[in-house]
Amino acid sequence: MYFPSWLSQLYRGLSRPIRRTTQPIWGSLYRSLLQSSQRRIPEFSSFVVRTNTCGELRSSHLGQEVTLCGWIQYRRQNTFLVLRDFDGLVQVIIPQDESAASVKKILCDAPVESVVQVSGTVISRPAGQENPKMPTGEIEIKVKTAELLNACKKLPFEIKDFVKKTEALRLQYRYLDLRSFQMQYNLRLRSQMVMKMREYLCNLHGFVDIETPTLFKRTPGGAKEFLVPSREPGKFYSLPQSPQQFKQLLMVGGLDRYFQVARCYRDEGSRPDRQPEFTQIDIEMSFVDQTGIQSLIEGLLQYSWPNDKDPVVVPFPTMTFAEALATYGTDKPDTRFGMKIIDISDVFRNTEIGFLQDALSKPHGTVKAICIPEGAKYLKRKDIESIRKFAADHFNQCSLLGKLRLECADLLETRGVVLRDPTLFSFLWVVDFPLFLPKEENPRELESAHHPFTAPHPSDIHLLYTEPKKARSQHYDLVLNGNEIGGGSIRIHNAELQRYILATLLKEDVKMLSHLLQALDYGAPPHGGIALGLDRLICLVTGSPSIRDVIAFPKSFRGHDLMSNTPDSVPPEELKPYHIQVSRPTDFKVSAH
Amino acid sequence: MYFPSWLSQLYRGLSRPIRRTTQPIWGSLYRSLLQSSQRRIPEFSSFVVRTNTCGELRSSHLGQEVTLCGWIQYRRQNTFLVLRDFDGLVQVIIPQDESAASVKKILCDAPVESVVQVSGTVISRPAGQENPKMPTGEIEIKVKTAELLNACKKLPFEIKDFVKKTEALRLQYRYLDLRSFQMQYNLRLRSQMVMKMREYLCNLHGFVDIETPTLFKRTPGGAKEFLVPSREPGKFYSLPQSPQQFKQLLMVGGLDRYFQVARCYRDEGSRPDRQPEFTQIDIEMSFVDQTGIQSLIEGLLQYSWPNDKDPVVVPFPTMTFAEALATYGTDKPDTRFGMKIIDISDVFRNTEIGFLQDALSKPHGTVKAICIPEGAKYLKRKDIESIRKFAADHFNQCSLLGKLRLECADLLETRGVVLRDPTLFSFLWVVDFPLFLPKEENPRELESAHHPFTAPHPSDIHLLYTEPKKARSQHYDLVLNGNEIGGGSIRIHNAELQRYILATLLKEDVKMLSHLLQALDYGAPPHGGIALGLDRLICLVTGSPSIRDVIAFPKSFRGHDLMSNTPDSVPPEELKPYHIQVSRPTDFKVSAH
Repeated sequence: MYFPSWLSQLYRGLSRPIRRTTQPIWGSLYRSLLQSSQRRIPEFSSFVVRTNTCGELRSSHLGQEVTLCGWIQYRRQNTFLVLRDFDGLVQVIIPQDESAASVKKILCDAPVESVVQVSGTVISRPAGQENPKMPTGEIEIKVKTAELLNACKKLPFEIKDFVKKTEALRLQYRYLDLRSFQMQYNLRLRSQMVMKMREYLCNLHGFVDIETPTLFKRTPGGAKEFLVPSREPGKFYSLPQSPQQFKQLLMVGGLDRYFQVARCYRDEGSRPDRQPEFTQIDIEMSFVDQTGIQSLIEGLLQYSWPNDKDPVVVPFPTMTFAEALATYGTDKPDTRFGMKIIDISDVFRNTEIGFLQDALSKPHGTVKAICIPEGAKYLKRKDIESIRKFAADHFNQCSLLGKLRLECADLLETRGVVLRDPTLFSFLWVVDFPLFLPKEENPRELESAHHPFTAPHPSDIHLLYTEPKKARSQHYDLVLNGNEIGGGSIRIHNAELQRYILATLLKEDVKMLSHLLQALDYGAPPHGGIALGLDRLICLVTGSPSIRDVIAFPKSFRGHDLMSNTPDSVPPEELKPYHIQVSRPTDFKVSAH
Repeated sequence: MYFPSWLSQLYRGLSRPIRRTTQPIWGSLYRSLLQSSQRRIPEFSSFVVRTNTCGELRSSHLGQEVTLCGWIQYRRQNTFLVLRDFDGLVQVIIPQDESAASVKKILCDAPVESVVQVSGTVISRPAGQENPKMPTGEIEIKVKTAELLNACKKLPFEIKDFVKKTEALRLQYRYLDLRSFQMQYNLRLRSQMVMKMREYLCNLHGFVDIETPTLFKRTPGGAKEFLVPSREPGKFYSLPQSPQQFKQLLMVGGLDRYFQVARCYRDEGSRPDRQPEFTQIDIEMSFVDQTGIQSLIEGLLQYSWPNDKDPVVVPFPTMTFAEALATYGTDKPDTRFGMKIIDISDVFRNTEIGFLQDALSKPHGTVKAICIPEGAKYLKRKDIESIRKFAADHFNQCSLLGKLRLECADLLETRGVVLRDPTLFSFLWVVDFPLFLPKEENPRELESAHHPFTAPHPSDIHLLYTEPKKARSQHYDLVLNGNEIGGGSIRIHNAELQRYILATLLKEDVKMLSHLLQALDYGAPPHGGIALGLDRLICLVTGSPSIRDVIAFPKSFRGHDLMSNTPDSVPPEELKPYHIQVSRPTDFKVSAH
């Protein structure tokens, strides 16, 4: 196998040659992902008929006999064609002499996007014809033999990045869309980053990768869980929203350090930019505190961060939930820019302006402001008008100022101010969340702010028995550029405390969780963990507009697979073994009459 | 962090210190899994309160102040206790002096399997009291402080490997069963082996780890697929039996080399040693032939093979399907021992023995035999009788001789002959399977021997149009010690051929696969792949009696989770959003009246 050019690049240390703001070039970005002084470049041509990938050929290969396999990207006047594989593009000269007529015919007749195999010699391009924008731009292939491996029929759209397609069309022909540079880059970056996370967790820190079931029991109040009918009449499995119970049980089982790249399921009906199945980096540790988990995750992201991005700086800043709400009007602040919310009540303490006087006279009444730097310079009258309307539309929502801040940032950016640098990744821990929230439907009752296994803040345990509403938790969220990309907590390991919270404070039916409560009785170690939303994280890292761009075969926002027409009808006889019948909405009406 | 003892062991090259036939000792086997000159030992005590694991302490730690966390394994006369964590056992001296009364009380009062944290000094055991059978047997801990982290209530069974429990009890209290040495070893070996497979595929050979959906469309004839009702009346997702379609579509999408540790689902009702969800190492490559896939897999198993087993020797031998049937009477021969089936027709060509004459006079009639070496010495009269009965019971089943061979091997082993060395791993490729088989319910029609995407053998393509029954395929199975642990094939990449096989030969409704057929039209590269059954493989590697022993939370053979009582009933109002109703068997009867 030949890969001297890869290796030489590796040792020349050409990491991060291209910033995301630069026009992407086939092969360059993906190769840069792999470049690091600690990593060996994989053998991409082992076990197969090709000797090299299209994208790896350089001047150092001159004179070598190579066999390449790829797709015809483009052909010019029957003189040359550009061959593409996952690694890049290479120019192939179509032979014009009579003796090579059959080779010429194969290469000239094959439609664009046909798959061909060519063998020939790597030669220099004629002087002046080098293409410095193309990584393989110094060389071309003088073909000796060619074989058409598969012809391509007329395509529904051109496989060129500059050809814009609707997302529905892209999803319908996902196997063609995957040939685009951006999708190749996104999926390979995802694979690389997850691999490095595994190395960090498994090889450096002794975590055990353990698979947990996805056919499980319905959790109390699990209204968003998909059901799976079993062959026992009326009995169902449920697809869990996370391996929460299992990972805690693994700690009780003494596994000490667990992780899993876990498939999770949530049936939220139609929600934009959500997926019915999604993936989380799921982690749990014994004998750990909040600081331990935070350091672990900081190291994890630093270790796995792609080479073509600026390195991650650790430790990440920390902010309390209360501070985040007061300063940014949200529990997931975008800390790439300022424009914080400032309490200016004191300025107006003696004001005669009526509506401010009104506000300040109320208990806890405050006047708050956001200062937009050079706002007067950038914002136009209609911008101010739209801000005023936005405020009016969201009046009385406590998150108004947070939303207003983001709205103002959007406006400033449309006016050309760069507030949120796309190459900047601003991580933030948000901590000290409340343990409980008043139930929406009955504010006198409590519900868990996150989930009922979250441990109370050590300073607030006494409040559980006096003013539980005031108790803070040991929950922590990880925020990146204003997006929640992870959350976790130290868990309750004391069975009595867990029972008190479930039964007395939350008034849950503890029977459905009896196995977990019992497990806590049998020597459960103190433990805690976290889950990172992998799809969202990769989406932010790649700067993709939607998580659908970092998933090979995503569902549409209605939960459909547009390529295969999923979900689909099932003949009634195939429902019989599961003892279910379809009750169409009209059937309900009929039976109600 | 202290791990000099790990490192020194690593560089002293203590790999494979213990054979599986030896009595397992806590810590030793797991540590040996990690020992290899190429691998760094993980930091097991990073981010947590302990300074060391219980199992890692040696004479080299003498004098060090350590903090340990673990479970009380055992206590003797209030003088010492043995503390356990995942890494092993260590002896802790309970202080007897008045000033340490509170420490003594904690350590003496805590029930066995309680979780404690102790800090103290590593000291030598008094001369003569060393325990050479215990990896930490030269030292003990002189405790200064102790904390009870969680007390343990009375256990349903003792956490000791020699205490035999029923499997139902083990599954009901799985979180306790996981504390056993064997389960810790099995799950950690699994994690390690999968990690090494990922390194081989991803880092050495450029495979891309791609997640494919598990909520998908029902495949034609997919009678064993679980259904998942959607919120659209009468529309269902299906949990696929494998990512077969997706991996082929990824090749059409130019991903070149795909792998996934893929969760798969199969609803087979109650089947011993099967699981409704299981895991396969799923692989697909472009531009590859059968030899390429075989070399890849041989390298994969060699690279990922545990250090405490004998190394894997490659290449694996290959046998045709026809030869396997003729010589071993099965398509998954156990090649650890001989006793092959021999055709002795010629010996009896002129026989006067009636039943042999009868057999030989029929078309293709043969007389075959198995020679049991020293059978007369080992087998008793009642053994011969049981073989005769077995033969009579299975008469006229073509696999009779293959089963008889295994039956004889079982008998010989009960008589003390070691035929199948438990430390021997005998891999075998079985190739040249038939492409089609006659349908069971209608032998004049054909069905795929494996699946309809399998490419025909290059020499047999012409037979598809004349005698399809005789066509061999490019399918290959990987067999280990008589168990099929993997299977794959070169796929059809030509749309016309795929249509001909699906529509004309198999008479399938091609509409359900129209997306795949269309994909083949748009420049699908030649491709092939394989899937290894991970649960079965790890079961064989660890020598476990059941695949349930290598899965953290397995289902019982009836598909139940005995810990949480799954599957379970669901209130009717939670079925409404999915437009389904339960139709109990009695309901059917009533409506039939």
